[in-house]
Amino acid sequence: MSSQIKVGIVGYGNLGKGVAAAIEQCPDMELVAIFTRRTPDSLSVNIPNVKVLHISDAESYTNEIDVMILCGGSATDLPEQGPQFARLFNTIDSYDTHAKIPEYFNMVDEAAKASGKTSIISVGWDPGLFSINRLMTEAILPNGGTYSFWGKGLSQGHSDAVRRVDGVAGAVQYTIPIEEAVEKVRNGENPELATAEKHLRVCYVVAEEGYDKAKIEQEIKTMPNYFADYETEVNFITAEELKADHSKLPHGGFVIRSGKTGEDNKQIIEFSLNLDSNPEFTASVLVAYARAAYRLNNEGQAGAKTVFEVPPVYLSPKSAEELRRDLL
Amino acid sequence: MSSQIKVGIVGYGNLGKGVAAAIEQCPDMELVAIFTRRTPDSLSVNIPNVKVLHISDAESYTNEIDVMILCGGSATDLPEQGPQFARLFNTIDSYDTHAKIPEYFNMVDEAAKASGKTSIISVGWDPGLFSINRLMTEAILPNGGTYSFWGKGLSQGHSDAVRRVDGVAGAVQYTIPIEEAVEKVRNGENPELATAEKHLRVCYVVAEEGYDKAKIEQEIKTMPNYFADYETEVNFITAEELKADHSKLPHGGFVIRSGKTGEDNKQIIEFSLNLDSNPEFTASVLVAYARAAYRLNNEGQAGAKTVFEVPPVYLSPKSAEELRRDLL
Repeated sequence: MSSQIKVGIVGYGNLGKGVAAAIEQCPDMELVAIFTRRTPDSLSVNIPNVKVLHISDAESYTNEIDVMILCGGSATDLPEQGPQFARLFNTIDSYDTHAKIPEYFNMVDEAAKASGKTSIISVGWDPGLFSINRLMTEAILPNGGTYSFWGKGLSQGHSDAVRRVDGVAGAVQYTIPIEEAVEKVRNGENPELATAEKHLRVCYVVAEEGYDKAKIEQEIKTMPNYFADYETEVNFITAEELKADHSKLPHGGFVIRSGKTGEDNKQIIEFSLNLDSNPEFTASVLVAYARAAYRLNNEGQAGAKTVFEVPPVYLSPKSAEELRRDLL
Repeated sequence: MSSQIKVGIVGYGNLGKGVAAAIEQCPDMELVAIFTRRTPDSLSVNIPNVKVLHISDAESYTNEIDVMILCGGSATDLPEQGPQFARLFNTIDSYDTHAKIPEYFNMVDEAAKASGKTSIISVGWDPGLFSINRLMTEAILPNGGTYSFWGKGLSQGHSDAVRRVDGVAGAVQYTIPIEEAVEKVRNGENPELATAEKHLRVCYVVAEEGYDKAKIEQEIKTMPNYFADYETEVNFITAEELKADHSKLPHGGFVIRSGKTGEDNKQIIEFSLNLDSNPEFTASVLVAYARAAYRLNNEGQAGAKTVFEVPPVYLSPKSAEELRRDLL
């Protein structure tokens, strides 16, 4: 199909693999190339007609690629790659360091405006779909409160923190919404809740031979920032159990807006996700927004954008007429 | 505040009253006037500084009103008022005759383009917020199915149908999602379900003296289009019970997208509403989109729009910078 949107992927970890899988479900898109910092031959990519190239070759593909999806991490990859690729391509990324979003936006905006490209930053589910729901529901019900819950899901950052504890051979950490807190919010009680009052942290840990489990448990539970303020549960399991029962990457969560209108009428809006694979879902969101970036750029809307600036119609491969007829 | 958006209301039934209440929660908006087909003096409007005028006076208010919110019904009011007011004002309406939306869109679009005004049609929750969720979630998870459930909620059209049955002195009808169907969808089973397999219809009926209740029940349950295809429950109550327990207008429902990514990973997205007052909530959505219509028009985007074409950022009174910092 000559009208296919040509996509490139930068970074081939869980997210990059998810993007490749998501593009296969989109007949209007074509994956052209995957760019990596590793030796290209070392990647096992089994997709016909897709080039695997070193990241340093990307700049010679500006005519072959309509949108580049940046699949690196927010800590060190994106602060560098975001502006760098926005100087050459329309881009999508999932930058999620909330506190630094304004600064990151400005860097990418400057680069994208200079090149006349369109870059949509911080795409995914949070930031992303959850953010859209926070914005829209607050605008619709100004008199109320918004509650974001995460989980049940595997938290990569907290799992890493547990793994750094002395005597831990392997570990995963699940974030789980506290049911009583959820019910209060769904009932429109508008409670005041700190993040720690909304979530439980459950760890599954493999201890190394000869280490004191009680000491490991104590060290996890008192770890500042990560666990000290939370109700934390530590379960010791075997390496075999860890592999068999905890190697998927499920996640999810919900955003609830609880507001009042008129003479004290309660109105509750909830948006929720229940995901078998967090990286594959995030990737699917990135791919839908790649379609939007391509279209916005064709209209001359250069610069950095967020999901807040993108009209829903740009996400769908269908025409506006078709959407009005079938989905409105 | 000189920068307030000046709003007018056309039609002062449940929806119009809800719009007036919603505007009171928006410091960036001001309700200027209510237009009615009735004798203006016959309306009891207790809002300071708001004019109550006959609908025929509206055209002399084109300089005083930024956005007109049309609160009439879809059967006869809006097909006439939509194009008529789009020739004079930016407008918002809740046109909800699904099958005729394309035709209505074209009529309003022609009028609005001729006047240089912006009209957002079919705003509310369905069509409206549910439609946005159907569009976005299908774009994100193309391999899957979408399920819209309505209720538990009072259906005005079905209540009216029951009231037309001989011997019925009063009645309400609630539409209720069938729990087994909901669970199958939430579990990602992707069942094939007709509307009648997703919803139960429960009626509360006051019978007139001397009428045979069994006959009334039979007549309701066999009514074509409305009830014949559904599992329907008829409960007889007293006039006092009808007034005491069934005079609110609750509603709600949910849109579920159940999709698969990668190697058979289930991904579920759900958007749900639980509303004490259907008209007040719909009104709150209309008011947020009035803000969007005003801004789109200031940017020169004339013509008819739907919720599909409106970027989320236009709904909020906050600046894009503030939203990126606080809600992304």
